[in-house]
Order: sequence, then C-alpha cells, then structure tokens
Amino acid sequence: MAKTTPRLHLDAELTPAHDIALSRDQGHYLTHVLRLVGGDVVEVFNARDGAWLAYLTDVGKKAVNIRCERRVGDVTPPPDIDYLFAPLKHARLDYMVQKATELGVRRLRPVMTARTIAERVNLERMRANAIEAAEQCNLVFVPEVLEPQPLAKVIAVWEPSRRLIFCDETGVRVSPLGVLRGVSPPAAVLVGPEGGFTEDERRLLKSQPFVTGISLGPRILRADTVAIAALAVVQAAIGDWGA
Amino acid sequence: MAKTTPRLHLDAELTPAHDIALSRDQGHYLTHVLRLVGGDVVEVFNARDGAWLAYLTDVGKKAVNIRCERRVGDVTPPPDIDYLFAPLKHARLDYMVQKATELGVRRLRPVMTARTIAERVNLERMRANAIEAAEQCNLVFVPEVLEPQPLAKVIAVWEPSRRLIFCDETGVRVSPLGVLRGVSPPAAVLVGPEGGFTEDERRLLKSQPFVTGISLGPRILRADTVAIAALAVVQAAIGDWGA
Repeated sequence: MAKTTPRLHLDAELTPAHDIALSRDQGHYLTHVLRLVGGDVVEVFNARDGAWLAYLTDVGKKAVNIRCERRVGDVTPPPDIDYLFAPLKHARLDYMVQKATELGVRRLRPVMTARTIAERVNLERMRANAIEAAEQCNLVFVPEVLEPQPLAKVIAVWEPSRRLIFCDETGVRVSPLGVLRGVSPPAAVLVGPEGGFTEDERRLLKSQPFVTGISLGPRILRADTVAIAALAVVQAAIGDWGA
Repeated sequence: MAKTTPRLHLDAELTPAHDIALSRDQGHYLTHVLRLVGGDVVEVFNARDGAWLAYLTDVGKKAVNIRCERRVGDVTPPPDIDYLFAPLKHARLDYMVQKATELGVRRLRPVMTARTIAERVNLERMRANAIEAAEQCNLVFVPEVLEPQPLAKVIAVWEPSRRLIFCDETGVRVSPLGVLRGVSPPAAVLVGPEGGFTEDERRLLKSQPFVTGISLGPRILRADTVAIAALAVVQAAIGDWGA
C-alpha cells in the first residue's frame, strides 16, 4: 500500500540548506487538492539526491516553498534494462509508460517502426507519466526519457554489449526463460507496435548478433499487455526479482 | 494483428444444420456498426464447438441470422490455471478481466478479502469483458466466471491437488522462477486487493500446504500490474509459453 505522506518528484537539488520553491502545479496540488498547510510533511525525491522528508514553509498565493529536513532514502535504480517501444496512442501510451516505470527500467526509448501509428511523440507527457508512476509507487528513481529514433538508426548505433531482447510473435515457440538463460544486464526490451514488426524489420533484428528474440506464448497479446508481460518475464529471469 | 474477419462469441450450438439468430446487440453491431450485409462472412466461436466461418443469411430489422459453413478451429483451452482476484472498481476490473483472459486462464474467480473495496461484483459485466477479450485476441475459448466467494471459504474447500500461487508482497525476496520450479498445472494465481492482504489473511494462506507464495520484486506494483506480471511469470514458468 502506498504511504500516506504525499510524494513529489523535484528536479531541484534536494538540500536542507535553503527553501525550495515548488512549481505552480505542485504548489496547487499540495495546498488546494490535499489542503496541506505550513509545517505539513511531504516526501520529495529525485534520481540524484535520493528521498527526503520535507515540510512546507512558505504557503503563499504566489509560491509554495518546502524545506528538506532529513534524507530518508537512497536512489534505487532498477537493473540496467532499457525499454524500447513503438509509441501507442494517447491513453494507452500513458499507461504503458507508467507500467514500465513501475516494473523498473532505466530508460524509456520510443522507437519509430514501419507500423507505428503515433505521429508525434509527446516527450513531456511521457516524462510526466514516468514521474507520476514513480511518485505513486514509492520509487526513488525516474527512468530517463530519450528522443524517439527510427528502428534502423537504433540498430545501426547499438552498443553490442547491451543485449536487445525483442518480442517476436512469429518466432518458434521456445521457452523465454530458456532463451534468457545466460543473458544479464545491461539489456533492453523492445516491443513493437499494435500491428507488429514488418518482415523486413524482423529480418533486420534477427541478423544482429546482439539481438535475442523471445516468444510470449501461443495467444495473441495486445501491445500494452506485451509490454508488461515481457518486462515481468525479463525482470524475473535476469533482473532483480530474484535478488 | 487481429484478423479483419469480425469475430463473435455465440452461446448457441454452432452447427451448419440451421440458421442461428444473433442477439439484438450482435446483430446491431454487425449490420449498423460494421455495415455487413447478407452473404458477408464472420467467424463465430465458443468453448464447446470451436470456431466456424459463417455468413449472414437473414438481415432484417428484427433479427439478424447467420449460418455456419465450415469449422476453422478447435477449442484451445489455456493451461489449467485459474485466476483468483479481489475485484477492483469498474474500469480497472474490466481491464484486469480482459488481460487475464488474454494471458490465458481457465476460470476467473472473484475473491472477497478484508480490504476488497468493490461491494457488488457484476458477473455479467465480467463475462462480457472476458468475451470481448476472447473475440479480439483470436481465442477459441472463454474463461468461466465463477461466483465471488470469501477468501476463508475458498481456502476451506480448496482441492489440494491444485497449487495456489499467491503474490506475497511482504515475503522474503527469492526468485519466483526458483519457487515455481517443480510446480505444474492444475494451479491458480491469487492476487490481492489494492491494499494487500491483511496479516491474518497472509497467515491463513501461508499455513496451507497447497499454497506457494511468490515475490514480484522490490518495487511496489499496482494491483492491475501485479495481475499481468504474475500471470506472465506463471505462464512462462509452468504454463504453455515454453511448449
């Protein structure tokens, strides 16, 4: 169950040395939605300074300030697993980004494929969803959101020491756990768009020495299900679910 | 990618011997939403008669009939794994039922726990969601939806040959894959409510010889994420993802 102390991600340096001004939205949320007043406690965090207990100092019409008091948590990065995905539309993309953050990934990397439908990728919105999931799920980390890249470019500049695990719907059905035996982070999970990868894309992927294809069973899964299922299996097989 | 032939689940016996009348909703969907006309082809299926290609015969204002022509698929039941879950509210419950169906479970069994919030469980709606997921994901199967039962009752009458795998957030973190080694269907996956199980419930579960607790890693997951993640790991470890 989530703690009841409100949690906020703050980009600012978290230090007890001076007050930190909240953004207008965050100030509004704390004082108008949650009705906090001066002296009330919040938890603030970022992926650099860890988590801090802080209290509201200045609660004015124009600004809401907090002061960090005590560091309560270290930064806890998930295993070095990136999540590469063809952006879905709107609500389903929000959801996918939240779920990937929850399950624990280092970086969120949108990849444009032949059948990718989302024309414009809203990175700010993606980042806001990652932050929201981190706030709600007690993470002391937020995955970095990278600029979208075409699949061919991603492959061309890939660092071969990072294993690229892709969800191959048309592959021979062998156990994903068997295939992942011997794989370890750094790694990345690549999930295609609703329509799947094209034959050309699949051929390109399969011809790379750093690529491992996994099957997620005999039933057709929707792209957002694949995202969660693949990350769960990868975390269980090579991530920190067994640690 | 889903086939473009519309798919419909029909409770009626699927036989080429005579016309089958569609429900008002199904008839409306085919003729007004999809704008099909007499002679157009649909796929119909149920968990008893398999999948059939059929064509629209009588397209009237009052009734839309189809006639089965050719059987195109056997019933493909997933592994004998049940999914037991504390009902969530509305949209999130819809989603959870759809995802469990997609991932492949035999039965959907709502379980009332101390912290379950949904007061009334709408079984019809649950069944409609399971059918929708089966239609969209090309399943030739629909999981049975059972009546809700209190957790204590479920445990009291449990058939001990079916391993009950429960997602224990507070358990010692050992690999779920290690714990599941040696387990095989028949099995069941039990996921708690948003607030988790109470101490008493956890004690009750852990004291049963047929119960196995698994951990899904160090990060807090939301109940709907747990549902998908647990089923994915169980399918990969003991289900048909390796077959």
